[in-house]
Amino acid sequence: MTTTTTPAVILVRPQLSENIGTAARAMLNCGLTDMRLVAPRETWLNDKAIASASGADRVLLAAQVFDTTADAVADLHRVWCSTGRDRYMVKPVDTPREAAAHMRAVIAEGQRCGVMFGPERTGLENDDVAIADTVLTVPLNPDYCSLNLAQAVLVVAYEWYQCDAATSLPAMTKGAEGPATKEKLLTFFGHLERELDECGFLRIPDKRPTMVRNIRNMFQRAQLTGQEIQTLHGIVHELVTYRHKKGEDKA
Amino acid sequence: MTTTTTPAVILVRPQLSENIGTAARAMLNCGLTDMRLVAPRETWLNDKAIASASGADRVLLAAQVFDTTADAVADLHRVWCSTGRDRYMVKPVDTPREAAAHMRAVIAEGQRCGVMFGPERTGLENDDVAIADTVLTVPLNPDYCSLNLAQAVLVVAYEWYQCDAATSLPAMTKGAEGPATKEKLLTFFGHLERELDECGFLRIPDKRPTMVRNIRNMFQRAQLTGQEIQTLHGIVHELVTYRHKKGEDKA
Repeated sequence: MTTTTTPAVILVRPQLSENIGTAARAMLNCGLTDMRLVAPRETWLNDKAIASASGADRVLLAAQVFDTTADAVADLHRVWCSTGRDRYMVKPVDTPREAAAHMRAVIAEGQRCGVMFGPERTGLENDDVAIADTVLTVPLNPDYCSLNLAQAVLVVAYEWYQCDAATSLPAMTKGAEGPATKEKLLTFFGHLERELDECGFLRIPDKRPTMVRNIRNMFQRAQLTGQEIQTLHGIVHELVTYRHKKGEDKA
Repeated sequence: MTTTTTPAVILVRPQLSENIGTAARAMLNCGLTDMRLVAPRETWLNDKAIASASGADRVLLAAQVFDTTADAVADLHRVWCSTGRDRYMVKPVDTPREAAAHMRAVIAEGQRCGVMFGPERTGLENDDVAIADTVLTVPLNPDYCSLNLAQAVLVVAYEWYQCDAATSLPAMTKGAEGPATKEKLLTFFGHLERELDECGFLRIPDKRPTMVRNIRNMFQRAQLTGQEIQTLHGIVHELVTYRHKKGEDKA
């Protein structure tokens, strides 16, 4: 992804270098690389920023610095502003999820967009909010809503990344062989049930069908692989062999 | 929300107090209060933890400490484990969004659930993963996926909170009066167009209907409030008055 196909993250007057670094880390995790800083402290690119970026320092090193918010958004077509407080301005409101879908649509039309985040203590000034198209507010616990700067960036970046359909995961861990064929499973059921018949566990004829179904369902739900079925064959075999041995010892 | 109706967040052998504090902050933002720590450092509840919790210290003070992962999950019915690495174990995989929906379903059935997070450097051990029902993996940039502990907790807690339908936001900022009636808007259109006719802006009869529609559409899209329409009346009035004045000056 290049910077023209992903939203810009605009940190307005950020105070702490750690937060800029952690924001860069949050961004790169979600494929965002266009960081813009409005009037940061002169010493912002320091060891604390690099350490908290944790390998995402390429985002920090490529960050563009601007004097004003207006300069930072000048080339963008659509701008969101992240704010938790009500500003008594008339402006559409998006959740991060809604904003992500809208950003994807804006970018699909060949336009550029970005999200502004305010300083840690005070948030964005009303004049910054006024040049945004849409307010972005994270729905949070009304009794305690206090995301720090990098947490707010993470939530927005995360929703941006999730909005790409290609990010879906397989339903099961990979690396294993996947579920066994039913033939293998039924062979194991046959083995297990023979032994359970033999040892007397299924001795009551009226109850046997239900018990067999219940036992089969347990193993069925586990979505066993062929390897695991082999292991179960071994377990049953060993238990029976031990019982037989014990029987022999007793005899 | 009480701890029986929200998932537990289980931090296994967390190393840094700041991360425990920031995780507490992430949790409380999303209505989660049941924090469990497995074998933390003895000094975990220190000034760094309290400072980074930023007001969410009630979560830290109520945290339960356990010796083993097994003890920490003993009362739970369903457990997810957060891991980015493939473990070559056969286990269902959920994204945070899928896990949130499943957690809501589990809790709706009166059961208890939780999510385990491993130590910062190493992640969960395979023995911890083996006692979880489901792997939780955040879909992230394949070229850089490196969420810190508190970021991973935030993503999971955020999805939990968003999964509640009651968290949706209004489409517009509140505090303002909302869009004006069409009558007020049409009255303004009449005012504006009268003045545009008078000054000659709409002087070409063939083009007039299209120009009027284009102008109306611009203001239409703005979803103006009654107050804003009053302001626009004032702007038009003042511009015209100035023009007349200027005309008088010239005369």
